[in-house]
Amino acid sequence: MSNAIFTISCPDQKGITASLTNFVYQNNGNIIHADQHIDPQTNTFFMRLEWALHDFAIKRADIASAIQPLAQKFKMQWNLNFTDHRPRVAIFVSKNLHCLHDLLFRIHLNQLPCEPVMIISNHPLAQTVAKQFDIKFLEFVVLKENKTAKEKDQIKILKENQIDLIILARYMQILSPQFIAQFPFKIINIHHSFLPAFIGANPYAKAYQKGVKIIGATSHYVTEQLDEGPIIEQDIIRVSHRDTIVDLQRKSEDLERLVLSRAVLWHLENKILVYNNKTVIFD
Amino acid sequence: MSNAIFTISCPDQKGITASLTNFVYQNNGNIIHADQHIDPQTNTFFMRLEWALHDFAIKRADIASAIQPLAQKFKMQWNLNFTDHRPRVAIFVSKNLHCLHDLLFRIHLNQLPCEPVMIISNHPLAQTVAKQFDIKFLEFVVLKENKTAKEKDQIKILKENQIDLIILARYMQILSPQFIAQFPFKIINIHHSFLPAFIGANPYAKAYQKGVKIIGATSHYVTEQLDEGPIIEQDIIRVSHRDTIVDLQRKSEDLERLVLSRAVLWHLENKILVYNNKTVIFD
Amino acid sequence: MSNAIFTISCPDQKGITASLTNFVYQNNGNIIHADQHIDPQTNTFFMRLEWALHDFAIKRADIASAIQPLAQKFKMQWNLNFTDHRPRVAIFVSKNLHCLHDLLFRIHLNQLPCEPVMIISNHPLAQTVAKQFDIKFLEFVVLKENKTAKEKDQIKILKENQIDLIILARYMQILSPQFIAQFPFKIINIHHSFLPAFIGANPYAKAYQKGVKIIGATSHYVTEQLDEGPIIEQDIIRVSHRDTIVDLQRKSEDLERLVLSRAVLWHLENKILVYNNKTVIFD
Amino acid sequence: MSNAIFTISCPDQKGITASLTNFVYQNNGNIIHADQHIDPQTNTFFMRLEWALHDFAIKRADIASAIQPLAQKFKMQWNLNFTDHRPRVAIFVSKNLHCLHDLLFRIHLNQLPCEPVMIISNHPLAQTVAKQFDIKFLEFVVLKENKTAKEKDQIKILKENQIDLIILARYMQILSPQFIAQFPFKIINIHHSFLPAFIGANPYAKAYQKGVKIIGATSHYVTEQLDEGPIIEQDIIRVSHRDTIVDLQRKSEDLERLVLSRAVLWHLENKILVYNNKTVIFD
Repeated sequence: MSNAIFTISCPDQKGITASLTNFVYQNNGNIIHADQHIDPQTNTFFMRLEWALHDFAIKRADIASAIQPLAQKFKMQWNLNFTDHRPRVAIFVSKNLHCLHDLLFRIHLNQLPCEPVMIISNHPLAQTVAKQFDIKFLEFVVLKENKTAKEKDQIKILKENQIDLIILARYMQILSPQFIAQFPFKIINIHHSFLPAFIGANPYAKAYQKGVKIIGATSHYVTEQLDEGPIIEQDIIRVSHRDTIVDLQRKSEDLERLVLSRAVLWHLENKILVYNNKTVIFD
Repeated sequence: MSNAIFTISCPDQKGITASLTNFVYQNNGNIIHADQHIDPQTNTFFMRLEWALHDFAIKRADIASAIQPLAQKFKMQWNLNFTDHRPRVAIFVSKNLHCLHDLLFRIHLNQLPCEPVMIISNHPLAQTVAKQFDIKFLEFVVLKENKTAKEKDQIKILKENQIDLIILARYMQILSPQFIAQFPFKIINIHHSFLPAFIGANPYAKAYQKGVKIIGATSHYVTEQLDEGPIIEQDIIRVSHRDTIVDLQRKSEDLERLVLSRAVLWHLENKILVYNNKTVIFD
Repeated sequence: MSNAIFTISCPDQKGITASLTNFVYQNNGNIIHADQHIDPQTNTFFMRLEWALHDFAIKRADIASAIQPLAQKFKMQWNLNFTDHRPRVAIFVSKNLHCLHDLLFRIHLNQLPCEPVMIISNHPLAQTVAKQFDIKFLEFVVLKENKTAKEKDQIKILKENQIDLIILARYMQILSPQFIAQFPFKIINIHHSFLPAFIGANPYAKAYQKGVKIIGATSHYVTEQLDEGPIIEQDIIRVSHRDTIVDLQRKSEDLERLVLSRAVLWHLENKILVYNNKTVIFD
Repeated sequence: MSNAIFTISCPDQKGITASLTNFVYQNNGNIIHADQHIDPQTNTFFMRLEWALHDFAIKRADIASAIQPLAQKFKMQWNLNFTDHRPRVAIFVSKNLHCLHDLLFRIHLNQLPCEPVMIISNHPLAQTVAKQFDIKFLEFVVLKENKTAKEKDQIKILKENQIDLIILARYMQILSPQFIAQFPFKIINIHHSFLPAFIGANPYAKAYQKGVKIIGATSHYVTEQLDEGPIIEQDIIRVSHRDTIVDLQRKSEDLERLVLSRAVLWHLENKILVYNNKTVIFD
């Protein structure tokens, strides 16, 4: 059976939780998960409420309008999702295929509840992996002079295919603000450093040069500011003077796989709320 | 201003969250923190609800009886606490003083909201630290033949001093079931291994002998089963073939300080619920 | 160009390092890596010495005999390997394919210097992965009544194929002492718990039952004692009361992939020495 | 009995290890620890050699000159130390006393082999801790207009007291290049962030603002570039949206204590070599 997931943010005031949980209770819903958070600096209230649709008095299609009065009263920004909806996903990748491979294998194991629709790349290299996992592969040779046109084509295809989530699985092209604006908080990137350290290109070389004792990886939503979007997840591993840049890359790639797949899972489970260029993650 | 903290566990059913949050709302309380958990295996519902007493319509002394009808209806096991109550703490210690020292320094920094009332030891060694931090020190030379009598004396003193929490900060005496029964889930121990590995004496030596690559420390509530009570917190550190038993001890002691202090903090903040010999920890 | 790697253990005494490094120097070798360790409890000396064969005065085939006098003088147990030798590997697997998949992808990326020769399984499930990566797949339906015979067949095939290393990548059959004796310290297993905690079957369920706050995975050489062989590598991840057994499994599988691949890499790089049922790992 | 520790760096070439270990062997020394590292980018050779002085043929005072010919031949930069020498330490601190307290307690437990000679502060607050541990306390009220003069006084006192190591245990004054030049690679600082992220002031607030999921601490040698000196050690801890800046501070302070004490220990054990603004750390 499916559950409904209602995520909100709004100015904090008395009665929000009581009103929402009452709404579920009076319509005979059984709450599976409820978590809330208050940001005292901005006086903002966040909530994730998940309840079983089994026995729920309101039909699925009518829930949104039934909840509308409450949402208006408390000035909520809200989303309503259902656990049996499998978001449609496009994966962008360049020549480093470890994250792509990892995501597809996890999807194959049913660990990431989504529909992998297509792989988009600026290189032909990923085609083999696409075939291994039987997914559509599209190559776009993006150059300076054709970038705007190519992005328009990409947007068109993504929209036609009703893509809900774009995963940049080590895609080494910078997306234009126009592209990003089409998919607000629907693009997840993996950056191969512990942001905000080593923003930009060649973080392995920079980490080696700096002589850090720990390296990291960061997954984040993509916004117009390069590598500056809301951080979803980070993880780290120890390195030493013995590690060459090649070693750093190998160790980092293990992190990248873990950190990206966690971010994607939480997004698919509707556990992430964004505000103030930061994330609230309900575990 | 102070907050009320209400923690419960009960059989899961519809309406618990709605009823409790309504109770707060209708009495003009502002919820600061609400978190819940459902254990699907046992169908048990857990909740921690914290609200500001400022403007709350019910006097502090009357809250418990006001909430009683709800508690009965849902067959709740419950606790009501207030954030301005500073639990009275007794620390038991033997000859390894690092945890004692760490706890007292944290209390001194106001990082652990409690009243340190007394240090109890089976050795005179901790007396100096007691003086440094100006706390009462009691030595009990516990021997096989006088253990029952000594424990009776200890219980009497602890009760007279209205001790709310006993911390075994590397206390190398085994407490009798009779003693433990007097303080159910009010005794926190630090064990110097990653339980359930290396239960019992000399875990450093056992870890060395076994050649593990990671060592750990575990804080838990004390129950009659030695080292088997509900685990509150664990943490680990890497070791290698280069580490001698002395190195393992030094590294482990750093862990023990962290792991014990976290467990104590969460207990003092009423963030821990116990069931089935496990803990739910609301962060 | 290739390097020679000489690994030894022997009773500690004066002059071992000087004699060995002199041997390399006087034959015009350039030392790339030298690391040593002394176990004070057993007074045992360990060393890993790697030098470039470029310009080395002794032909590769003659090095072993040239070093023999020194080895005898110091009563060394020793191994001589060359970095351009790619060990021939057989991977055993049952129904959980994440480690198999991970190993093959790393080999494909040239991150594990070995020759993957065959996959052996007691289930047909892994056949698809074998095809994906174009490796020979052999199914052995091992039952109580035919185990001895089947193992004999396996040993025969492994010997015929000159297998240097057997990786148990979540192989859920217990190998007999007779089998293990054929491949001393040439079988690496991944156990899905933080050994010595949760030895034996169902460690996920045991960890859940116990309510641990951290789970782990352990790679080790296989000896006759089940799950008791020398530990090569361990790693951990945090869990909470929210994690179901399915979550523990998912998190643990990420660990298993990392921990097994690190152990295999170090073995292939001749960085592991075994003694007293423990490992020395030169990084 | 005491050991000699010889640490070197020099251009890599054949015969260095052989020559040095021969030197020890032929003078009847027993090597306790030998580790080396080659940086392939700069072709630099590093070594740490520790041998027992028991039975060693050369008198302690004559070792340096005896080793001089070898040092010259290989163009070594070198240091010779003895394990029974206890470096004389001055600790600089401002108002956050957790690191000071931790260091003094570790010294008290004999975990840091050094002589704590004095505490220097720009505030009177640390005086109580100085008294607790019976160490000389000097207050220098450093202002913009008297900074040069005060630093001269400090240098004078430090030199008179033959201070070998200065520990900045959360000292919130920036030292002038003139001061730093007096103590090259003899000043260890703890920075309360994961460098190079959040360089400069208020790293807790910056990390909170940025919404990172992990915070860190970094110990490093102090050079003229603020927070840019060679990194010795780093460690991290997870944080979440629930953590306030106060929580970040509390969690970070636990890291700072660990990370600083490890760096100090390795320095005292002569395990750190500096080159190219990075460190080689022999474990």
